[in-house]
Amino acid sequence: MEQNSQFIPAELIKKKKLGQEHSFEELQFLISSYVDESLPDYQMSAWLMAICFQGMTRKETSSLTQIMLDSGDKMDFSHLTPLCVDKHSTGGVGDKTSLILAPIVAACGAPVAMISGRGLGHTGGTLDKLDSMEGFSTSLDLPQFKNMVEEIKLSMIGQTKEICPADKKIYALRDVTGTVESLPLICASIMSKKIAEGIGALALDVKFGTGAFMKTKEDAKALAENLIFIGHDHKLKISASLTNMNQPLGKYIGNALEVKECLEILEGKSHVENNIDFYADTKELSLHLSAQMIFLCGKADSLKEARQLAEQALSSGKALKKFKEMAEIQNAPDVYNLPAAKYTHDVFSQNDGHISQVATEKIGVASLKLGAGRMKSTDTLDLSSGIEIHFKLGQKINKNQKLFTLFSSIVSDFSEVEGLLLKTIEYSAEKQKETPLVSEIIYGDNYGQ
Amino acid sequence: MEQNSQFIPAELIKKKKLGQEHSFEELQFLISSYVDESLPDYQMSAWLMAICFQGMTRKETSSLTQIMLDSGDKMDFSHLTPLCVDKHSTGGVGDKTSLILAPIVAACGAPVAMISGRGLGHTGGTLDKLDSMEGFSTSLDLPQFKNMVEEIKLSMIGQTKEICPADKKIYALRDVTGTVESLPLICASIMSKKIAEGIGALALDVKFGTGAFMKTKEDAKALAENLIFIGHDHKLKISASLTNMNQPLGKYIGNALEVKECLEILEGKSHVENNIDFYADTKELSLHLSAQMIFLCGKADSLKEARQLAEQALSSGKALKKFKEMAEIQNAPDVYNLPAAKYTHDVFSQNDGHISQVATEKIGVASLKLGAGRMKSTDTLDLSSGIEIHFKLGQKINKNQKLFTLFSSIVSDFSEVEGLLLKTIEYSAEKQKETPLVSEIIYGDNYGQ
Repeated sequence: MEQNSQFIPAELIKKKKLGQEHSFEELQFLISSYVDESLPDYQMSAWLMAICFQGMTRKETSSLTQIMLDSGDKMDFSHLTPLCVDKHSTGGVGDKTSLILAPIVAACGAPVAMISGRGLGHTGGTLDKLDSMEGFSTSLDLPQFKNMVEEIKLSMIGQTKEICPADKKIYALRDVTGTVESLPLICASIMSKKIAEGIGALALDVKFGTGAFMKTKEDAKALAENLIFIGHDHKLKISASLTNMNQPLGKYIGNALEVKECLEILEGKSHVENNIDFYADTKELSLHLSAQMIFLCGKADSLKEARQLAEQALSSGKALKKFKEMAEIQNAPDVYNLPAAKYTHDVFSQNDGHISQVATEKIGVASLKLGAGRMKSTDTLDLSSGIEIHFKLGQKINKNQKLFTLFSSIVSDFSEVEGLLLKTIEYSAEKQKETPLVSEIIYGDNYGQ
Repeated sequence: MEQNSQFIPAELIKKKKLGQEHSFEELQFLISSYVDESLPDYQMSAWLMAICFQGMTRKETSSLTQIMLDSGDKMDFSHLTPLCVDKHSTGGVGDKTSLILAPIVAACGAPVAMISGRGLGHTGGTLDKLDSMEGFSTSLDLPQFKNMVEEIKLSMIGQTKEICPADKKIYALRDVTGTVESLPLICASIMSKKIAEGIGALALDVKFGTGAFMKTKEDAKALAENLIFIGHDHKLKISASLTNMNQPLGKYIGNALEVKECLEILEGKSHVENNIDFYADTKELSLHLSAQMIFLCGKADSLKEARQLAEQALSSGKALKKFKEMAEIQNAPDVYNLPAAKYTHDVFSQNDGHISQVATEKIGVASLKLGAGRMKSTDTLDLSSGIEIHFKLGQKINKNQKLFTLFSSIVSDFSEVEGLLLKTIEYSAEKQKETPLVSEIIYGDNYGQ
């Protein structure tokens, strides 16, 4: 501890324990002392646990975001018109829209600066999907990244150590102290990294349902409102779409498999089985979020116009061309050079009926077990592995109809995963009411429709 | 971490965060890993903070007590008849009964094994009072202590490093992480140390009011019931007296001053001012707790008989003799050799009326500021310092009547403390209803009356 500091760490911990609000200076003291290692891990973790129970006010959350942001390098794209834009998703299963919407928006002429993360637990990460393309480099330095965004309107890279080092250090501690689940801590972590990109607009995809961190729409809405408040406080044009994650998005889960789906959608293809287009939801959500981004960044005057621009960029092949242009610069001249799985296995239904409920998170875990995901951040992936989905919620399934195809290069005995997967589906006699893919859109106060 | 352990610390922290009950094995894993330093401070502190919010079941609290107990040496006085007995007080201001009741009970023939702590914050500690007597050694080793209890039925020493090392390590962490205030953690810490003394009976003095940790009788009762449950679970004969700490106990606060009060009570003296005996409450509480101890340990068949034995031991001078006998063996041949304060100062009332409310904790803090207490455990004391009280709740006080006499050898300018003290008293026109010194007595299930 600094000897002449006006703050006593144990007293600040007690203050939060009692549910009182910290001043900006108190938060700054705690975070900066933690980063410079004068505040020990054991005081930070006790404080983080107190936050898990007592929460933070929006003002505190916004302050924490600012302090974590200020702990590292910040980019600045404020000289660009339209505004530089990004998307953030709270994570789901089969959620692969970044690879489609980023080239769509860039092809419309809006600069897209996308710094993504890796997958953890049941959710995938954009960075791992990019890694599936032979040679693709996600570790550009910030000047290279900035140059690409300015020159071709698009670059997709991974977190660098210069951005939000405070968040990195705190997240690593949260991961081992049971303090990941906390609305304000999640919000500050997400938003500090996004604001550090130097963007002017941000479309949030806040997922709810059986495959999302937030199981209910209400919880997702609370998260969205907090994220929007922070974004608004930091002068971002921002919206949050509350979207349905009650089943895997699209046809495939798993890194190379998801890239394949994205490339086919960028090529204008569909994937029809039993009269259902299994690419439809991925495509629709990608277009929806593209339109949000195009509208927020000021490239279009209305959402309707933004949607038209997005559809044109996709159908004309300009988005695919933009994606290939980016990949070429990032050392992946052939985006179709993807790893194929050594082993495959089909899983068939043991029941019949309409699919009424899908334990989507467990399907994500099953995919992880095949090699597509990480239990902990140091695990290595089998990029070829994953799951193909042969059903959608509400669909009538017969006994012995194919439900899943499993892919892996490291697992050849699929019996454990098959057992897990068969338990993820519930059937009903009658078809249940469908819920929309996009349930609600919330805008920041500084940007109405 | 042990690589092949079945337990994952972060998962156990999350379990407690969600309010679930730990098994004995889970608690044992956490505590033993912490003691052997394979579990880092930052995981222990996050877990402790989760306990502050989610609590522990009585079963968990009793298990934690057992595990902390098993982390170190345990004494065994089970061969003694009557049962070896001790008292524990939850701490107050002017609370000095140990020095009176221990020799009373020992003089009645019941073995008293008393391991005490030092004062911290507004409360005093028995060990500091014993230190006031020139030469008194509180650092006997355990064999010496055991020998005294067996031979003369009495010894009073401080914590040794062999007893409950897990509690010591955890308490030090709690102190700097805002996790001291937690009912189950407090209970397990108290009871593990008491059970390690090898006693068969324990009288608890659980204080409530403006000078106690528990401000209300309800909170004190909850604490008492938890302590009794643990004691019962560990086969102790146990009772808890809920006692009033809405004003300082007795005449004096401060180490040498309190020893003087105890010696005079042991000599049979009273201390009358304005027709009030200022020693009456100290004497009454000491006799009450002595009777509890004598009854619980089996030396008397009824509380009435126990009380008579206690009164006889006091009035006959046998208790004083026993105290001197102990002090002689513990290197204090002259118990009257106490330090005197260099500076004194009287504080007079600025109002008149009946005393209706006393901010007792603040009087404890004022005494601390004169040198009688510690803000943190490493502070050194001025054993001569303290406060003499010239009022009791309900008493009619005139303007300019003496309220306090201050004593110190290190503070000569009393203006700050005088200012603090004048704010600790409230007056009312009418005399308010008096509340009893002992409000309720609770017994363990295995010992009725």
